[in-house]
This record gives sequence, C-alpha cells and structure tokens, in this order.
Amino acid sequence: MTAKNWEAIAAKKREDLSSSIPEEWRIPSDLLPPADQDDVTGFPERSGWFTPEELTITGQTAAELLPRLASGELTSETVTRAFCKRAAAAHQLVNCLSETCFARALATAKELDAHLSRTGEPVGPLHGLPVSLKDNFNLAGLDSTVGFASHVGDPALRESVLADVLRGAGAVFYVKTSVPTAMMIAETVNNVTGRTVSPRNRRLTSGGSSGGESALLAFRGSPLGVGTDIGGSLRIPAACTGIFTLRPSFGRFPTLRCRSGMPGQEAVQSVNGPLARTLADLALFSSTVVGARPWRLDPRCLPIPWRAVSLPPKLRVAVMWDDGVALPTPPVTRALRQAVAKLEAAGHEVAAWSSADQAAGLALLGRMFVADGGRAIRRELDRTGEPLHPEMHMYGEGAARELGAYEYWQLHLDRQEYQKRYLDRWLEAGIDAILCPTTPYSSVENGKFKHVGYTGVYNVLDYACISFPTGITVDKSLDVALGDSYKPLSDLDKEIQSEYNPEAVHGMPINLQLVAQRLEEEKCVEMCKVVLDVLS
Amino acid sequence: MTAKNWEAIAAKKREDLSSSIPEEWRIPSDLLPPADQDDVTGFPERSGWFTPEELTITGQTAAELLPRLASGELTSETVTRAFCKRAAAAHQLVNCLSETCFARALATAKELDAHLSRTGEPVGPLHGLPVSLKDNFNLAGLDSTVGFASHVGDPALRESVLADVLRGAGAVFYVKTSVPTAMMIAETVNNVTGRTVSPRNRRLTSGGSSGGESALLAFRGSPLGVGTDIGGSLRIPAACTGIFTLRPSFGRFPTLRCRSGMPGQEAVQSVNGPLARTLADLALFSSTVVGARPWRLDPRCLPIPWRAVSLPPKLRVAVMWDDGVALPTPPVTRALRQAVAKLEAAGHEVAAWSSADQAAGLALLGRMFVADGGRAIRRELDRTGEPLHPEMHMYGEGAARELGAYEYWQLHLDRQEYQKRYLDRWLEAGIDAILCPTTPYSSVENGKFKHVGYTGVYNVLDYACISFPTGITVDKSLDVALGDSYKPLSDLDKEIQSEYNPEAVHGMPINLQLVAQRLEEEKCVEMCKVVLDVLS
Repeated sequence: MTAKNWEAIAAKKREDLSSSIPEEWRIPSDLLPPADQDDVTGFPERSGWFTPEELTITGQTAAELLPRLASGELTSETVTRAFCKRAAAAHQLVNCLSETCFARALATAKELDAHLSRTGEPVGPLHGLPVSLKDNFNLAGLDSTVGFASHVGDPALRESVLADVLRGAGAVFYVKTSVPTAMMIAETVNNVTGRTVSPRNRRLTSGGSSGGESALLAFRGSPLGVGTDIGGSLRIPAACTGIFTLRPSFGRFPTLRCRSGMPGQEAVQSVNGPLARTLADLALFSSTVVGARPWRLDPRCLPIPWRAVSLPPKLRVAVMWDDGVALPTPPVTRALRQAVAKLEAAGHEVAAWSSADQAAGLALLGRMFVADGGRAIRRELDRTGEPLHPEMHMYGEGAARELGAYEYWQLHLDRQEYQKRYLDRWLEAGIDAILCPTTPYSSVENGKFKHVGYTGVYNVLDYACISFPTGITVDKSLDVALGDSYKPLSDLDKEIQSEYNPEAVHGMPINLQLVAQRLEEEKCVEMCKVVLDVLS
Repeated sequence: MTAKNWEAIAAKKREDLSSSIPEEWRIPSDLLPPADQDDVTGFPERSGWFTPEELTITGQTAAELLPRLASGELTSETVTRAFCKRAAAAHQLVNCLSETCFARALATAKELDAHLSRTGEPVGPLHGLPVSLKDNFNLAGLDSTVGFASHVGDPALRESVLADVLRGAGAVFYVKTSVPTAMMIAETVNNVTGRTVSPRNRRLTSGGSSGGESALLAFRGSPLGVGTDIGGSLRIPAACTGIFTLRPSFGRFPTLRCRSGMPGQEAVQSVNGPLARTLADLALFSSTVVGARPWRLDPRCLPIPWRAVSLPPKLRVAVMWDDGVALPTPPVTRALRQAVAKLEAAGHEVAAWSSADQAAGLALLGRMFVADGGRAIRRELDRTGEPLHPEMHMYGEGAARELGAYEYWQLHLDRQEYQKRYLDRWLEAGIDAILCPTTPYSSVENGKFKHVGYTGVYNVLDYACISFPTGITVDKSLDVALGDSYKPLSDLDKEIQSEYNPEAVHGMPINLQLVAQRLEEEKCVEMCKVVLDVLS
C-alpha cells in the first residue's frame, strides 16, 4: 500500500459495509426517524417494521433466550435473523457496526439447529445465541481495521482465541462493532467509518473504545457483546449507555490473536470482557469462557476455574467520591450518594477511600501508552496518509519521546511500586470493594469526553471491575451544575464542570463502578448483586 | 560514588565478609584441606572439628528437622548454630557466601525457642529452621550486591517479600549466598567476592547464578535454600551439584523487593524457587509459601492455592534427547536413557519430543536479555570502573543495540507466538511432561559452562520445571567421549564435546529436568516422585 489514499479507502469501506446489509434489513426510507431525533431506542417498537416475534426475541436477555434455544422452543435461525435485523437497524441509526457476516451467521445458526434436532443436545452453554464482537476480534475473512484505513482489505486468516471459545460454546457471530482509531479514544470515532453515537440520545457519545458494542446493546441489537479494555474501553461505553460490563484481570479471558492498536505493548495489558444488559449475563459469559479452560488455547491465560465465592454477610465498601483530578458531574455524585445511603441502610460498612494515589496511577498509564513515542500508531496512519484525530494528539510526532527499553524497564519498576502501595492500602483498610464513578459523566455530548482517570487506574492495577447501571437516571431539576462556591480541583475539572449540560443528559442512565481486587472477578459479580439489591 | 575504585571496594568487601565469621567458626589452619584437594564434602565428618551433634543435625533434611524443632526435641538455637558453623566452613572451602548475619540468626532462633516454650506452639511450618537466601534477597541491614562493586555498602532498608513470608513461617536467616555479576552467568563468579566452586570437586563449577546456594546445600551447610531463575539460574546450579530445585511459573512465589541484575526487565520474568536435598523439601517450601497467601503481599502473585493433584496411573512423557543446538555430554545421555528405559518398564508411555523449536526459544531469550543494549548492567559497572567479565561480552558497549520500546513490543509479539506454538504442540502430543537434560553437563570444569538452552527455553515459556538428581553418577569407563563418527550439531556442540573430560567429572551426580506446563508446579512435583520411584 504505497498510495496515500486513506479517503478513497475509507469511502470504499463505508460503501462495502453499507451494502453488506441486505435489502430486507434496510430501513424503508419513509420509516427512518428524522436526523434530529435524539432518542432512537424506541424505533423497533414504534416503527411497525419489526414483527411481534422479532420484538419479543430481541427484547430478551441472553439468560432468557438460552433455555429456549437449548430446548428448541426457539430456533437459532429465528433468533439470529431477529438480531441481524435489529443490528442492521441500529447501524443505520447510530453507525455502530464495522463488519457484518450475516450469511455466516445464518449458516452457523442452521447447523446448530440441525445439531439440536439430530442429537437433542445443545452444543454448549451459548447454543444458538448471537454474540456481537468488537472490531478487533479476528473472524476469518473479515477485516479488523481497529479504525485504521491501513488495515482495510486485510482480512483475518485465523480467528481470535476468544472467538474460538465462544463458537465452541454455541455462539453465532453476525456482526463486529465500531471502534475509535487504534481503540485509543474514549469515544467511538475514526477516519474510516466515522462516528458512533448513543441510541438513547444521538447527540451523546456511546463512549469508547467499545462504543459500537455499547450502542448496539443499548439498542437491543445484540443480547451479548464482547469488548476490550486497556484504560476504560469496556467500562466507559457501558456507563455512557447504561449497560453492564466486567473488566476482568488479565489472564481470566483469552486475548490471543486479537488485533491491538499498539501490538505487543504489555506494560498495561488489554483485556477482553462481556457487555450485557444484566449482571446475570456477565456471569453467564464468564463461567462459560472460563469453563472452556482457555489456558489450553491461550498461553497467557491463567488456570483458575470460575470459583464459587461466599461473601461476608456485611460488606465493607470504600467510597471514592472523586479522584482528586476531576469531580464527577452532579448526576453521578447523586447516584453515588444514593448507593452509599442504601448500602449503609442495609447494614453494610462504608469507609472513605482517599484519592491520594489516583493521579499517579493515571500518569503511569499515560507513560505506558506513549512509551514508543507514538510510533506504532503513526506507522499505521502514515501507510495511507491518514490524519491523526485531535483527541489522539499525545501520539503525534514529537508529542512523546520513544523511551527506549532501558527507561521502559524503569516504568515497570514504578508500576510495581504503585501496585504494591495500592494493595497495602487496600488490605490495611480491610475493604471488600471500592465504589466510585466509572467516569465523571452519565453520558456526554459527542466530542466532549475528557477524563479516563476513574477507569484507567484500575488497568494499571489490573483489578476486577464492574460498571453497572444504578437504575437512577439524570434529572435536570435535581442535577444542577455546581454553583459559584465550587472550587475546581484542576483546569480539567473546571472544563468538565463548565461543559456539564443537564438539558443534554436529562433522562440518561447513571452507572457506577465497583472495584474488587486483582483476579476477584467472581467476588466482584457477587458484590454487585448486593449493590443492585440495595438499589432496587 | 564517583571514584572508579572497584578493586578497593571489592577487597574491603571480601575482608568484611571474612571477618564476619567469628573465631569459633573459623577452620583451624592445621585442619584446612590442601588447596589441591578436589572433594571437600567429607570435611565436616572427617576433620573432627564438628561435634557428633552438629553432624547429626546438619545431616538432616528440612523435613526431618522440622518435627523435631516443632516438638522442642531440638532447639532452633542448637540447629542454627550447627548450620552457621557448617556454612562458615563451606565458605572457607568453596567461597559460597556473600553476607552473613549470624547474630541476627541466633537472636531469631532464641526468640523462636522462647515462643515455643511459652506457647507450646511453633510459629509456623518452618519453625526454627535455618534457611539460606541467594544474595539478591533483601535483608535489612545487609548488602545485596548481586556481584556489583557499585552495590557494596548500600544495605537494604526493607526485606524481600519472600523473606517476610519465610520469616513469618518460622525461618531463621543466617547467610546469603554468592552469585555471578548481575546473576547473568551460568557459573558463580564476580569481581567482588570472586569464584564459587563445587564442594564435590573444587575444579568444577557449582553452576550459576544460584551457585552459592548449590555449593552450600551440597556441603550440607543449609537444609533449605532459596534462589532465582531467569534462564536456568536455579536448575543449572542444582544440576552441577546434584541437588533438587523447582523453577515455578511466575506468580506462584513472591518476587517483590528482590534486587535484580536488570531491574524492571519483564519480557522474561525472573522467578524465585527453593533448592533442597530432597523432593519432599521442595514440596514443603512450596506449600508453605503458597499457603501464606503471598498474593496479599506481592501484587504480581497469583491467588492460586497449593493444589492437590491426582496423576493418571500411566504418565505420558515426551523425551527430548537433545535440543538440536548442543548434545548433552555422554553421562547425561546415559542417565536419560536409563530413566526412559525404567519409565517404559514401569508401564509409562514415552514419546519423542522434537527439538525443532528449541533454538528459536533460546534466541528469543537472548534478545530479551540485551534489549536495553546492555545499559542496565554497564551502568552499574561504570559506577566503580568495574570491568565486564568475559562471559558477559553480550552486554558490552556496542555488542547489542538498545531496541527501543517499539521494537521491544515486537519482541513481545514474537514471544506470544512462540508460547502459543509450543502449547499447541504440547496439547497435540497429549503429554504430561517433557523429560530432558538440565544442561549438557553433569558438571563441568570452572570457566567452561557454555550452554543454557535446555533451561532457558522454559523461562521464555514460563513452564514449571524440576531439576533432580537421578541417583546415577558419572562413570568415566562408561561415559566416554563421543568418537570420530560423531557429527556435531553446531560449532558450540563441537566445543562442548571436545571439552568433555570424563576424568574431571568422574563420580559426579547426574541431574535431569522434568518439565510440566505453566502453573503446574504441583503436578511437576508429583510426576517427579514417579520418576524417582522408577529410578530407585
């Protein structure tokens, strides 16, 4: 690829993607919501374009669908067709797909149906379930561009190990979902397929980098999705769209043979995790993947089974109200206050978690991301003359220095000491979890997402985290902007608070983040049940 | 430290080390074996300088001593004194110590004795047992020079996490043991304390880099030692002296706050492991350390308990006769042949393991070691003007190029693909273990150790390995040099075989290496029992 023709490549890719949607799943033009309609989540129910059966199917969670698929009450083909159609609609409304493989999906579904008829047995715990994958999961014959024009037309030869595991459990792959360039922006925008927006309000971002997934899930175009997280890329999109995600510690779910935005970068490890509409679906995904003994397929996976845990009757939860860098916006603080009050009312112990170490963790993450001076990312851009997105200025020529291996090793040492300090504090405090914001935002207007500190620190620490919807939504009459008496923590804080727009986010769901220790995914799930119980 | 006075620093350090041995534990000059006496292991029994009680105590393994210490039949003070004396003797004969802390040891021992008298309970599973530590384990107030003059006079402020764990279990620290410069030579020689030799034959090396430990253990100057391994540094010394060691996968035993030769280097992780005279003692160490839940102390430790495993009635063992780079010398091949014949006779399945991937693994390891162009090591040498040992020429100015972070990431990718390829082959072969040489040598004359390929590949792979004595010893009449019909695998092979000297190694123990999958330490121990059973 010598011609610097990124625009032509991108235009062709968008055209190919669009035309991969068959006529039957193209929204009739007279039904299309107007471009200025914010909330499109009601489109399937209100347009009359979906059959009652399609609506019933796509309204269900994975845990609801699976017993019906396993018993034959629903065929995989029927379920797959319904989700293909709803995903196609989602894409036409919020631009959330990067690839489609509808023909493959239907062929897989028919095979699974035949298997069930023949044997009376499902192939595995995900028998017949459509599962959407973030763009960077390799599926044979499909591109994994991760938003780079340079990767267009370079289809994968081998599938990602996690795709193998899910397929073995009975999953049906039908779409891959959009990401920002290199998956290194906290919104979902790239030069190839453009911007993905939230179906709950198209003026708002669906977050990033797994923002194609979150938009698709929030639209119910997928019952179960898989994304990745290196600085918040699962948790931020989940928060922006009011769905659930689990960021596992590295080694629980396989990561081999996914495409990376910075291949080989290991100072902080990217992890794969589920996105779903319920906590139960996160647990279903987790026990299925770990139950497949993925350490036999991915040499960096840990041979730790999915363990039963029993919680203490009263949890001890530390609350971090802010990270010392930027306050959460008012709705997030209100949701956190409510959660804390209800935990206390239910008899759980609540302690305060000092933000003293947060800024240092975020600074470490930043150094890790640009340790190569941005070369890996610029190399891909340069291949087609693609410009750097302004949000990615830190990767630009001259913005960061290539550290060299020697200084890279010093960074590892700083990380080790940081991890030790945080662990010591955790044990000294005797806590089970930290409860804190996932981001400063409920959601935020496109282009305005500014701070990944609440998530990124836990990537450096490699802790198990869940971002979950509290059931509380933004109320512009309650969640008013901070007044004049407010003293900003930083320039960034000032900017975030001044941009806070209660009108824009009114009605949006509010997520919080529950953080457990490293490799305590099972405990994190169980503790999240407790928190959801007190909130309900 | 600006003066380039490494020689003065080293001379002073040797003097301080020597004078740290109290008069009562200095070998009377008339009892000293002549400098040209090869085997000094019989000195304690034959010299008359040790009391029968001292000989009885130091003749026992950790597993034999511990119940007697726990019951009060033996006091820790008595046991500690006996091992202090024998370790002091060992040092005077083979130069195997780097630090002593006899006063601390006796104080600890007395406290433990008082605790037992007072409570009737031991403090933990290692109650009162002297445990020797490789030089790079930090003990407060002692240097951890790792063989660099630049680190002399820079005593540790905080103890290594593994030292904390062992001390908590009741261990008594009394000596630290010598290492080669930066722990990056397969023998034990440095510019500060000089060369350590094997007590079985002082013309032979005790191996490296945990060669102070192996020499001390082989002399019975310690019942249990702790070393480290990044390319074979536990297994090679164990093999050269005929003792046992377990190289665990990274994350089983804590590594935090040890001094490294290349701090922050993580492409291949250094691990800590036990050295002992029996397999039972390795298991004792392992269950004790893991039982202390070290993941609460070292954030990179894995929360995997020490697990019970049940082996299949018949093992399937792959044999790798050579690594395709350098053949083992004749005694090692003979021991491997005997082990294989006995495994087969006992009904176990034996398969062949192709050496096809070994050279590539070793090449990867080499790239990892010099990724910083040797800067970390040269920086320490330069601080005192200390010269580079010829064995370490690969770290010299201009010998290797600083890769930069970008290329370092490519190296990670190469390692990932390598690990995947090896794992796939392992599972395809359906094997439980690989049985192979630990090194080409039984032992070898000082200065002639040349090849770490048999061990180093398993560092890149992070597999659990045990190096164990077969009970077979070199017999110069059987283990004759390869004849003229032999076609060398490489120049290195030719050199190794041409240097093979049956006279020099006659009577030396022969170790083999048993390799299990990553994080299969428990299975490796159980399988080694099976192999020892058939060999006995």
